[in-house]
Amino acid sequence: MIVAARRYSAGKAHEIAIELDGQRRECPAGCFDWIGLCEPDAAEMELVRRQYGLHPLAVEDALNPRQMPKVDIYGKQLFVVARTASLGEDGESIVYGQTAFFLGTDFIISVRFGSSRAHRELRRELEADAERLAEGADYVLHAVLDFIADGYLPIMDRLEDVAQGMEESAIDVFPEQAVIRRIFRLRRQLRRFERVIGPMEEMVERLVQADLPTIDPSARIWFRDVLDHVRRVMARMRGLKETLAAIVETASLLEQHRQGEMTRQLAAWAAILAVPTAIAGIYGMNFDYIPELKWHYGYFVVWAAIISICGGLYVRFRRIGWL
Amino acid sequence: MIVAARRYSAGKAHEIAIELDGQRRECPAGCFDWIGLCEPDAAEMELVRRQYGLHPLAVEDALNPRQMPKVDIYGKQLFVVARTASLGEDGESIVYGQTAFFLGTDFIISVRFGSSRAHRELRRELEADAERLAEGADYVLHAVLDFIADGYLPIMDRLEDVAQGMEESAIDVFPEQAVIRRIFRLRRQLRRFERVIGPMEEMVERLVQADLPTIDPSARIWFRDVLDHVRRVMARMRGLKETLAAIVETASLLEQHRQGEMTRQLAAWAAILAVPTAIAGIYGMNFDYIPELKWHYGYFVVWAAIISICGGLYVRFRRIGWL
Amino acid sequence: MIVAARRYSAGKAHEIAIELDGQRRECPAGCFDWIGLCEPDAAEMELVRRQYGLHPLAVEDALNPRQMPKVDIYGKQLFVVARTASLGEDGESIVYGQTAFFLGTDFIISVRFGSSRAHRELRRELEADAERLAEGADYVLHAVLDFIADGYLPIMDRLEDVAQGMEESAIDVFPEQAVIRRIFRLRRQLRRFERVIGPMEEMVERLVQADLPTIDPSARIWFRDVLDHVRRVMARMRGLKETLAAIVETASLLEQHRQGEMTRQLAAWAAILAVPTAIAGIYGMNFDYIPELKWHYGYFVVWAAIISICGGLYVRFRRIGWL
Amino acid sequence: MIVAARRYSAGKAHEIAIELDGQRRECPAGCFDWIGLCEPDAAEMELVRRQYGLHPLAVEDALNPRQMPKVDIYGKQLFVVARTASLGEDGESIVYGQTAFFLGTDFIISVRFGSSRAHRELRRELEADAERLAEGADYVLHAVLDFIADGYLPIMDRLEDVAQGMEESAIDVFPEQAVIRRIFRLRRQLRRFERVIGPMEEMVERLVQADLPTIDPSARIWFRDVLDHVRRVMARMRGLKETLAAIVETASLLEQHRQGEMTRQLAAWAAILAVPTAIAGIYGMNFDYIPELKWHYGYFVVWAAIISICGGLYVRFRRIGWL
Amino acid sequence: MIVAARRYSAGKAHEIAIELDGQRRECPAGCFDWIGLCEPDAAEMELVRRQYGLHPLAVEDALNPRQMPKVDIYGKQLFVVARTASLGEDGESIVYGQTAFFLGTDFIISVRFGSSRAHRELRRELEADAERLAEGADYVLHAVLDFIADGYLPIMDRLEDVAQGMEESAIDVFPEQAVIRRIFRLRRQLRRFERVIGPMEEMVERLVQADLPTIDPSARIWFRDVLDHVRRVMARMRGLKETLAAIVETASLLEQHRQGEMTRQLAAWAAILAVPTAIAGIYGMNFDYIPELKWHYGYFVVWAAIISICGGLYVRFRRIGWL
Ligand SMILES: [Mg+2]
Ligand SMILES: [Mg+2]
Ligand SMILES: [Mg+2]
Ligand SMILES: [Mg+2]
Ligand SMILES: [Mg+2]
Ligand SMILES: [Mg+2]
Ligand SMILES: [Mg+2]
Ligand SMILES: [Mg+2]
Ligand SMILES: [Mg+2]
Ligand SMILES: [Mg+2]
Ligand SMILES: [Mg+2]
Ligand SMILES: [Mg+2]
Ligand SMILES: [Mg+2]
Ligand SMILES: [Mg+2]
Ligand SMILES: [Mg+2]
Ligand SMILES: [Mg+2]
Ligand SMILES: [Mg+2]
Ligand SMILES: [Mg+2]
Ligand SMILES: [Mg+2]
Ligand SMILES: [Mg+2]
Ligand SMILES: [Mg+2]
Ligand SMILES: [Mg+2]
Ligand SMILES: [Mg+2]
Ligand SMILES: [Mg+2]
Ligand SMILES: [Mg+2]
Ligand SMILES: [Mg+2]
Ligand SMILES: [Mg+2]
Ligand SMILES: [Mg+2]
Ligand SMILES: [Mg+2]
Ligand SMILES: [Mg+2]
Ligand SMILES: [Mg+2]
Repeated sequence: MIVAARRYSAGKAHEIAIELDGQRRECPAGCFDWIGLCEPDAAEMELVRRQYGLHPLAVEDALNPRQMPKVDIYGKQLFVVARTASLGEDGESIVYGQTAFFLGTDFIISVRFGSSRAHRELRRELEADAERLAEGADYVLHAVLDFIADGYLPIMDRLEDVAQGMEESAIDVFPEQAVIRRIFRLRRQLRRFERVIGPMEEMVERLVQADLPTIDPSARIWFRDVLDHVRRVMARMRGLKETLAAIVETASLLEQHRQGEMTRQLAAWAAILAVPTAIAGIYGMNFDYIPELKWHYGYFVVWAAIISICGGLYVRFRRIGWL
Repeated sequence: MIVAARRYSAGKAHEIAIELDGQRRECPAGCFDWIGLCEPDAAEMELVRRQYGLHPLAVEDALNPRQMPKVDIYGKQLFVVARTASLGEDGESIVYGQTAFFLGTDFIISVRFGSSRAHRELRRELEADAERLAEGADYVLHAVLDFIADGYLPIMDRLEDVAQGMEESAIDVFPEQAVIRRIFRLRRQLRRFERVIGPMEEMVERLVQADLPTIDPSARIWFRDVLDHVRRVMARMRGLKETLAAIVETASLLEQHRQGEMTRQLAAWAAILAVPTAIAGIYGMNFDYIPELKWHYGYFVVWAAIISICGGLYVRFRRIGWL
Repeated sequence: MIVAARRYSAGKAHEIAIELDGQRRECPAGCFDWIGLCEPDAAEMELVRRQYGLHPLAVEDALNPRQMPKVDIYGKQLFVVARTASLGEDGESIVYGQTAFFLGTDFIISVRFGSSRAHRELRRELEADAERLAEGADYVLHAVLDFIADGYLPIMDRLEDVAQGMEESAIDVFPEQAVIRRIFRLRRQLRRFERVIGPMEEMVERLVQADLPTIDPSARIWFRDVLDHVRRVMARMRGLKETLAAIVETASLLEQHRQGEMTRQLAAWAAILAVPTAIAGIYGMNFDYIPELKWHYGYFVVWAAIISICGGLYVRFRRIGWL
Repeated sequence: MIVAARRYSAGKAHEIAIELDGQRRECPAGCFDWIGLCEPDAAEMELVRRQYGLHPLAVEDALNPRQMPKVDIYGKQLFVVARTASLGEDGESIVYGQTAFFLGTDFIISVRFGSSRAHRELRRELEADAERLAEGADYVLHAVLDFIADGYLPIMDRLEDVAQGMEESAIDVFPEQAVIRRIFRLRRQLRRFERVIGPMEEMVERLVQADLPTIDPSARIWFRDVLDHVRRVMARMRGLKETLAAIVETASLLEQHRQGEMTRQLAAWAAILAVPTAIAGIYGMNFDYIPELKWHYGYFVVWAAIISICGGLYVRFRRIGWL
Repeated sequence: MIVAARRYSAGKAHEIAIELDGQRRECPAGCFDWIGLCEPDAAEMELVRRQYGLHPLAVEDALNPRQMPKVDIYGKQLFVVARTASLGEDGESIVYGQTAFFLGTDFIISVRFGSSRAHRELRRELEADAERLAEGADYVLHAVLDFIADGYLPIMDRLEDVAQGMEESAIDVFPEQAVIRRIFRLRRQLRRFERVIGPMEEMVERLVQADLPTIDPSARIWFRDVLDHVRRVMARMRGLKETLAAIVETASLLEQHRQGEMTRQLAAWAAILAVPTAIAGIYGMNFDYIPELKWHYGYFVVWAAIISICGGLYVRFRRIGWL
């Protein structure tokens, strides 16, 4: 589906949209085409490919939205792959998409898969600032990448809250089995985020540092700003991974400590209760001749013995910390 | 065994195959020989070595299929080692093979060991596109490496499914001993895959980045595409390794938690059951004079005492979460 | 809030402060402006931006105090971000702030957020040494960075004391649950300190090694001294992290050992107490004909048997280390 | 002890051996001396040092066989240290040795300590191929290094078998204490192997890549082959280390699982056995008036109650997996 | 305290020592001053600073003996910081010191803090070899660094013995709590040693590889020898750290295994002892009519039943390895 196909000169959009019919149209100096495609089918993509002379390998990557973020040089053209991320409806799962960019000296074509956040709003904003838009295709690339990087922030905020909750329910209290399973799934989400979005840092770094066709040096300052954002997101993400690993380690030590305490109590009470059982057992025997049984106060003396021994044991266990 | 030995000019295969008799045959400009050998014996290999002037060290590596993937420069020739992988009959074990390539300005010789996926199909496909085939030996190298890299994908899909099953049977439920052993074997397979196939990334990276004889710069774009595939496979593989490590860690914490819960229940019920035993023990004693035994309602009072104490203990354990 | 805005020539401060009204004022050779802003609002910052021609991206970073330490080149200007840290009122939590610096050939503007340690004292010290101050803006940058780096030392001393206390209460003695939770929180603080302040090492390293506008080579020796301080702080911090990880690991092994010892004692006493219970049980049976019960010395022989078996068991458990 | 001291010209050995008397002897172009020393004493070494003008530091290293593998340049001479390894008599322990090489334009002196595998055999082989031997000292260095690298293979095969055994006796079955201790010692052996032999990779890599005196570029291809062998050995060794770490981790999880299962059975049977004990206890009390005791079928009803409760508990525990 | 202050020409020491009074004295070509200071106070250091024109930052580092080993270039002078280590009186703790060196073209000043090993002996040795001493200040630097590096060896030997003892008392036997605490403290010592002395490797590497004022290229071979020593010490130290980590891991698995074994025995004996208790309980009931009690041989049949059941249970537990 072709979202928009406009030509811009001196930052101003021409009225009539560009017709994507596979014919090559000369683009006068100082103006560039900005074409936005969303989940295009092979036919649409083939027209665009012929019209702007794109490399078949790049087109193949653009249509298969599971690439790793990268910057590929195809002669005088640049092919940039970025991965997008947004929170699923359930507010917990993360949905990944891919936006690929074909940059030529006088065009930028974005091919979006799976990201719910449309670029229409963004295009209107850029069109409002003709002076900046006049800087050409690399400025548009920076704007969209900045837009994508900002998309990561709400995810990090959400994940940090969830992790904060995990900590309370796993460290401050003894975690239920369900909590341990939620921590496992949250860590798996973080690992996937790091695997899919992590390489964005290296990709944007290349836009800042390498001499690339279609990216003029003055634009590097702007890509550097995007790089800061991506770096901060990845630093927060690494922080989260370490915290969750520490939560699991500490929860295990706390559970080990709790079981130790509980076993010590079990042992103490078992010892205390064993005394009456043993004594009662002795005087429950049916020997004809057991002197103590004859003694009028035998029963009370046995009670006194049980109480004093049990009391003694209780005090001793209290002192060594078993109770 | 010599699978095929054809000469190609302008991408078209000559009718009569090349005779591998150790005699050097001049190859007119613009054409190249493509020779495919499968598990050749020393004699066959010696003929080919003499006919194309291959280095003895390279031949030795080609015949001993346990090399690490590498790119070696032998004067004007290039020697490339790639490792192949495919699922065993049981659909679970992974079978590794080796395909070595000798590249000269006008020939490419592939020596295959152990990979079940014949190149015959691939050769027919390439011969169908004469224009591409005319790009020469480095294009054929790219096509076979691409074919080999695609061979990794079904293995990754299979391993990811197995790991998914492991997670369900180790995290959602309490794992049987057998599950723990399967996780151990799966992790060992992943380690082996990483050790054997891992260096392919560095090898293909060298084909993309280094100035190598017989590889013309324009082919780099195509090797870069193979590099993407290999990188994605290795990224998925690292993800799998981390997930399985997390499964073991979490299963251990869940088992620790389960034993804690079970021991708390054991302790609670032991305490509750100890009450009737102790009391019964006391009144099972045969002292001549135990006042309560004479009392008509003694037995019922004792029952009342037992029930109230046990009830009280049960409620208390319920509240502190032991039951 | 504008803390101070003075012009210095030959290291001497002019009487009348600089008026920050957005008008560009020529600065004669050999003198420079030093402007200190503390948590300026957008309006104040806009005036300063226009007066000294600062880049909007840099201004945006200066006003959003959660940047990662970095050195950005904006044409002939330098933009440096440093993170400050100081102990909270409770003497335990760490409060982070940010101080950004805009350096031009003849000015240095510092924008402080969140650090309680005012620069007023520092400015008085520098003004006392006109000869050094005459070295210009990069000397002021070094002085403030040195001041910031010294701010880390009391935090490290504090954290090392707390960690020392943790060790005593977790290794020398058996840790209470509360101690384990305190260790968890201390490790989280250390991770955060490493994440926020860690990149200061790389930032200062760039000031020492890279050719940067507004930093003259002779100043590198001074930045190198700041780098030493930062490196020492980070080395001490890494040491602390390793020690706390080792404390958790050792506490777990000690707890495991303690539970082992306690279970062995429990088992030993259970075995010893089981003897009288079993024997008493046997002779508590009401069979009409149990020979031993008729025997006059039966009861005493049973006591002798109980004592000797229990004694034997006690000695044996003592020898195998269960008691 | 001087093993052999021969001069070779055009790959042919001269009859009369070289006399090692400290006098410098001119070596005509195209020929070189190959001197093999095995655990030489200081005097012998001093003669050789004076005769070939070796650096005192290199001689000191050669006589102290605990060096790390390295390549040192001493002016126009090269000093190479390699570490040898071989299986001890017990077929389990690994014995390390050191072979140092002094290379000059026209000589190679090898000083061997502690390796049982004599070079005599190797020298005969090389002397059989005069054409290769004529390539000079660097070819001899390659041949000895290749011989040393091949020495690692039987050790790896042996260690892999032992590790395979460990796996069977620690994963498939529950490991005895002795097995756990054997795994500990095997892992310590691997760590030592990695520490002593590991740097060989970096050392041989330098022979392949660096411009070194006495090593002509054409020989690099041969050192590259040795590098492949060393790399494969180190890759297998790292694989072994990871497998043994995984065995320890899995054995611990299996033991934890086994204790869980056993404690659940203990708890279930304790509960089941507690029923008859409690009931018997109740009806063992000596109250004058306990109605049930008077009832003719009391005893059988109590039996019925015990059997039904115990049966019910047994079924319930079976269902929740405790039995 | 000024230990020694001599001028050397052609490796020979002048009679009258150099007077350290802050006056700059010309040093004729080919001779150099070697001044040794031990824990100098600020005044002494100020005189030396003025006399040899040292940089205030370097002097500050020299007087604050907690620097990280480093090499700083101050114009034509070199400032080298090395850390010393020696065994404390108790033969177990490690005492760290710092020796800083100021090198000029014609002087070397060493400032020693906290190392007990005086340089007086070393100075006598060097003065005995005038030919080497004539090589100037960089040779003296090498000699002292070699002396410092040798100081690490006895510490490593000591630590390796202690670690060997730990292994015997933690792996071959079950470790007492005290042993676990000693391992913790030994590991903390190793971490500190690695943190303080570790950077010596990088520092000496810079002396070998970088172009540094006052160090002539020919001296690099000698610094390279010191680097070997430092590298070997650090490799041994890393080996020790890994062994101790493995000891903790294995001790935990052994303890886990021991508790498993002990719990299985506990469960087996509990089951065996439960039989007589249950049976005795049944026949201890006071029902009026319990047929078996009337039977003359009831008691003996019950004994037979108890013995056979307990025997059967004992054999079964023996077979499944619980006893
Ligand atoms: Mg790339
Ligand atoms: Mg990458
Ligand atoms: Mg990076
Ligand atoms: Mg990159
Ligand atoms: Mg960078
Ligand atoms: Mg930046
Ligand atoms: Mg920014
Ligand atoms: Mg390679
Ligand atoms: Mg490699
Ligand atoms: Mg790589
Ligand atoms: Mg690369
Ligand atoms: Mg692709
Ligand atoms: Mg690519
Ligand atoms: Mg930076
Ligand atoms: Mg960094
Ligand atoms: Mg960075
Ligand atoms: Mg540096
Ligand atoms: Mg410094
Ligand atoms: Mg300093
Ligand atoms: Mg080296
Ligand atoms: Mg290496
Ligand atoms: Mg290399
Ligand atoms: Mg190679
Ligand atoms: Mg080879
Ligand atoms: Mg340094
Ligand atoms: Mg460093
Ligand atoms: Mg460094
Ligand atoms: Mg270096
Ligand atoms: Mg190194
Ligand atoms: Mg060296
Ligand atoms: Mg040496």
